[in-house]
Amino acid sequence: MEGAARTAAALLIGNELLSGKVHESNLVELARTLRSLGVALRRVVMLPDEMDAIAAEVRALSDTHDVVFTSGGVGPTHDDITLEAVAPEGAELVSHAEARWPTVVMKNVWVLPGVPEAFRMKLGVVRAKVRGASRFVTREVITKMDEPDLKPLLDRIVAAHPDVEIGSYPKWFDPRYKTKVTFDGTDEQKVVAAREDFVAQLPEGEPQTDL
Amino acid sequence: MEGAARTAAALLIGNELLSGKVHESNLVELARTLRSLGVALRRVVMLPDEMDAIAAEVRALSDTHDVVFTSGGVGPTHDDITLEAVAPEGAELVSHAEARWPTVVMKNVWVLPGVPEAFRMKLGVVRAKVRGASRFVTREVITKMDEPDLKPLLDRIVAAHPDVEIGSYPKWFDPRYKTKVTFDGTDEQKVVAAREDFVAQLPEGEPQTDL
Repeated sequence: MEGAARTAAALLIGNELLSGKVHESNLVELARTLRSLGVALRRVVMLPDEMDAIAAEVRALSDTHDVVFTSGGVGPTHDDITLEAVAPEGAELVSHAEARWPTVVMKNVWVLPGVPEAFRMKLGVVRAKVRGASRFVTREVITKMDEPDLKPLLDRIVAAHPDVEIGSYPKWFDPRYKTKVTFDGTDEQKVVAAREDFVAQLPEGEPQTDL
Repeated sequence: MEGAARTAAALLIGNELLSGKVHESNLVELARTLRSLGVALRRVVMLPDEMDAIAAEVRALSDTHDVVFTSGGVGPTHDDITLEAVAPEGAELVSHAEARWPTVVMKNVWVLPGVPEAFRMKLGVVRAKVRGASRFVTREVITKMDEPDLKPLLDRIVAAHPDVEIGSYPKWFDPRYKTKVTFDGTDEQKVVAAREDFVAQLPEGEPQTDL
């Protein structure tokens, strides 16, 4: 990786994910890692163990994002075809005698294992090697107001703070709150200002707090 | 939905999924539901709350799969734009006065909510309305052999049973087994035969059992 990465994509590979046999668990770890590095994960694709589909997708994602991470399909058996699918792109496969599978970074594509324990280990390497372009700042507010009742206020806040990404997440069965509102951006002052503006306009007595 | 569906795709929508704030949990439920219906989930895409990207992806997935399911972005607030993104495709939005959001099936696209409790409720409707083209049969074997050591045997079984999809899944830290081998197909006899062939060729005394 040269320079700072602004955007990322992920390709999650495996029949077992699409059949529901396995609950995919690597993505959220990757997403949090990238977030903390200041890299925006823009697109995730999940595909079965099929050479042509994987090769085409890796090429498309690599062309349109600064960095790409694949997960899965790097074991030794017949259904582990990610390395072969990536290789036509001009990859060099770097093997280590002491490891049962190699770590490959080909152009801007990181080929990571699907086994969650192994995936998490490799994220340490990602943290050490990938530099993000900007740090994200996040603030949250929870309230017991329903999302539909919040909508007029939210619309005003969104319009008044164009550089802050504002999210609204209803919770159905949580006794602590009904809606979580999030404020995200790269400028901490602007993020904090949007949050304060929102809190100041909540109805008086409306319980709100950081989670 | 008219006729039986052979292939499906899913589009999971939400900034919170890509930032790692939320661990996506709807997909595995959808995957299992489709599997039990006999519909093959072929592709999953995850995107942020962005109108143009969602609209383009819905169109592409709808053109190339028998049925498409979206999850997320159907609430009442500014970041809930899935309905609008799907609507240019010629959707009719069917609202019910008693529900806070409508259920939309537009051509072959099911627009489902992102809130897990609501998503799961809607899967009941999917189960009642979507018919699959073929039932899948699955068999499994677990063994304490390492995946690399199984490879020669697996290669023989794969070659001898071309109509059965054979998967091999290593487990690192499970005391019960090291590798799970799965046998999938639409012809139960062929699936069972592949499994029996595999078991018969395991080294003598190798503990193996159904999980």
